[in-house]
Amino acid sequence: MAYLDHAATTPMHPDAITAMTRALSTLGNASSLHTSGRRARRAVEEAREDIADALGARPSEVIFTGGGTESDNLAVKGVFWARRAADPRRRRVLASAVEHHAVLDAVQWLADQDGAEVTWLDTDRYGRVHPDVLREALRGDDVALVTAMWANNEVGTINPVAELAAVAAEHGVPFHTDAVQAVGAVPVDFKDSGASALTMTGHKVGGPYGVGVLLLGRDVACTPLLHGGGQERDVRSGTLDVPAIVGLAAAVRRAVEDQPANAVEVAALRDELIASVRRVVPDAIVNGDPGPQRLPGNAHLTFPGCEGDSLLMLLDAKGIECSTGSACTAGVAQPSHVLLAMDVEPALSRGSLRFSLGHTSTAHDVRDLAEAIGPVVERARNAGLAGMRRSKGKNVKAEV
Amino acid sequence: MAYLDHAATTPMHPDAITAMTRALSTLGNASSLHTSGRRARRAVEEAREDIADALGARPSEVIFTGGGTESDNLAVKGVFWARRAADPRRRRVLASAVEHHAVLDAVQWLADQDGAEVTWLDTDRYGRVHPDVLREALRGDDVALVTAMWANNEVGTINPVAELAAVAAEHGVPFHTDAVQAVGAVPVDFKDSGASALTMTGHKVGGPYGVGVLLLGRDVACTPLLHGGGQERDVRSGTLDVPAIVGLAAAVRRAVEDQPANAVEVAALRDELIASVRRVVPDAIVNGDPGPQRLPGNAHLTFPGCEGDSLLMLLDAKGIECSTGSACTAGVAQPSHVLLAMDVEPALSRGSLRFSLGHTSTAHDVRDLAEAIGPVVERARNAGLAGMRRSKGKNVKAEV
Repeated sequence: MAYLDHAATTPMHPDAITAMTRALSTLGNASSLHTSGRRARRAVEEAREDIADALGARPSEVIFTGGGTESDNLAVKGVFWARRAADPRRRRVLASAVEHHAVLDAVQWLADQDGAEVTWLDTDRYGRVHPDVLREALRGDDVALVTAMWANNEVGTINPVAELAAVAAEHGVPFHTDAVQAVGAVPVDFKDSGASALTMTGHKVGGPYGVGVLLLGRDVACTPLLHGGGQERDVRSGTLDVPAIVGLAAAVRRAVEDQPANAVEVAALRDELIASVRRVVPDAIVNGDPGPQRLPGNAHLTFPGCEGDSLLMLLDAKGIECSTGSACTAGVAQPSHVLLAMDVEPALSRGSLRFSLGHTSTAHDVRDLAEAIGPVVERARNAGLAGMRRSKGKNVKAEV
Repeated sequence: MAYLDHAATTPMHPDAITAMTRALSTLGNASSLHTSGRRARRAVEEAREDIADALGARPSEVIFTGGGTESDNLAVKGVFWARRAADPRRRRVLASAVEHHAVLDAVQWLADQDGAEVTWLDTDRYGRVHPDVLREALRGDDVALVTAMWANNEVGTINPVAELAAVAAEHGVPFHTDAVQAVGAVPVDFKDSGASALTMTGHKVGGPYGVGVLLLGRDVACTPLLHGGGQERDVRSGTLDVPAIVGLAAAVRRAVEDQPANAVEVAALRDELIASVRRVVPDAIVNGDPGPQRLPGNAHLTFPGCEGDSLLMLLDAKGIECSTGSACTAGVAQPSHVLLAMDVEPALSRGSLRFSLGHTSTAHDVRDLAEAIGPVVERARNAGLAGMRRSKGKNVKAEV
């Protein structure tokens, strides 16, 4: 089996499995005052220090959450609410048009239900937000926050995060970045980035599901999304998930330590993947940044005349696993909002596949794909043409 | 070591550890369309069916969340928002005064920040909400929702949930119940209860931290708290935590299956615990329901003239672990809101300890406590008297 869907989820690192498995059979609520509780608390605080250290943050800036979606929602809604409470004029959210749905839909909900105004920041054709676009949008004093992802989950393009954060800082506006795909793939340093808040999650870095982090600057006000025991700086409530936190710290340590070597290796495999696919399918189009400002493990390709879902299923039948875009929107028969924002034609965008490599990827995986892709594309094209003919017969506009 | 703090967190059941550990090294995002993804999805759906079956719900009513706090926040805020959106007059929340902070603080936030009005439902001296109190509060058509816990986490008193739900249903108002302490301890059947929404969490039933469930009736509108991929009926977004969900299902199956026998065994130990403590400390007061409408594993005792924190630390030094109340508020030097609502004097309430037993409790644990409690109470009383004298010397009002 060739697993080329590391951007959806990547296997847990053995270190993380070991750490977490051991913790599963230890006892103690980290908020309890007795010995077991204090031992659990110590494990959490050591994990917090390790994660802070790996990501260039202070331990007090690490807020444990239930994952990337919660971190994104907390940052977007929480900072919006806090900024508006401090000054009711601050009702505008600036968000890049290519954000993950956890940001996109949180922003849209604030607009639909809670009086926010949204300015979607245009991107270039690689899906990148330019600092001048942000600067232009920051005119006026009504902006509650800016959110722009570190690296795009579909096409892999990396944003100039430090430049964007600096522009936001010029205007005194908090800057949040979803770094779910970036941590472990490229160097991520919270302090150096200048971001006010940063989202990361366990299962994209070789850690467990169900645990994530929001790095949140000490001076950044953020209204809680989950109220209760106030476990995390009173910004996030909920019993601390000690085993998952311990597993997350092991994964983050490892992912960040291995990042430089891993990036080189994975990028070489990715380049070979693209080259070998285009040898067989010369008209395949590579989306996203063609240069170095791209995630090392990401290859996003459009196969003209094909339906992405057909390609995915045909490849799956040959033991090759990939995706048409974000796993979170799999099965949704709409063109990707990321590709639309990049001005890719809707018809073309539907014929796209994301191949994503990670810490367990091998040259075998790439060879398997290279062998399979030719016949698969041919079959998908024939199916597409047949579908078009059927549609035309019924007087329905063909969408191929 | 005698662990008498199962209400804070209880050890994972070996079945759950095995199921979860195995799942940690399997691959696949449950939203992915390829073979690994579909396999992960199948594991989630089997877990959903098992949990539904164990709790008298339909599989489609099981919403996986990140834990009890998230489930409570989702139910309280989500149902409030949805009901108010359907009819702006519905701004009142009825909540019992003895709820866990995850409900209490969510309700208070809606009141402070979002235009809700709250009626706190009085309880009797055992911490129980009576149906006539609810009926009285339901006059008028401005109620968005009612929330009352199944069983109290501090004093163990069980509410007449089915009667309360029936009263709410008479008025067409959704009824949420926090059953975090009830599942596995007493019979819990969602359908029979008549509740619209029910919270449960993994780490209180021998499952993992970081995963919980909101049982939500199919016809109960609920605005999401976390937006994104829409994984759970579009009510909750976030990548499904497959290993934790699989572990949760194993724990719930086991906890519910073992509940009848376990309740008898644990209640006998608990009764012996209370009796043996009162043999040594005859003026110890038992709080909460004195009859059968009480969690089998809960013993909540007040030791007049003592500080709860001193008792806790002195017992901990002898290897006996318990709590002064909810773990989520440990370290907070305020009298418990539960005891205050039960009209316990503040001075007395501060001298309280919760001993909670569970599936690994033994007669040894009880004997250890019986041997230790006498000298510990004596020492705490002496310390309390000394503290009072010191305070009086400084002209500060003694709070003992």
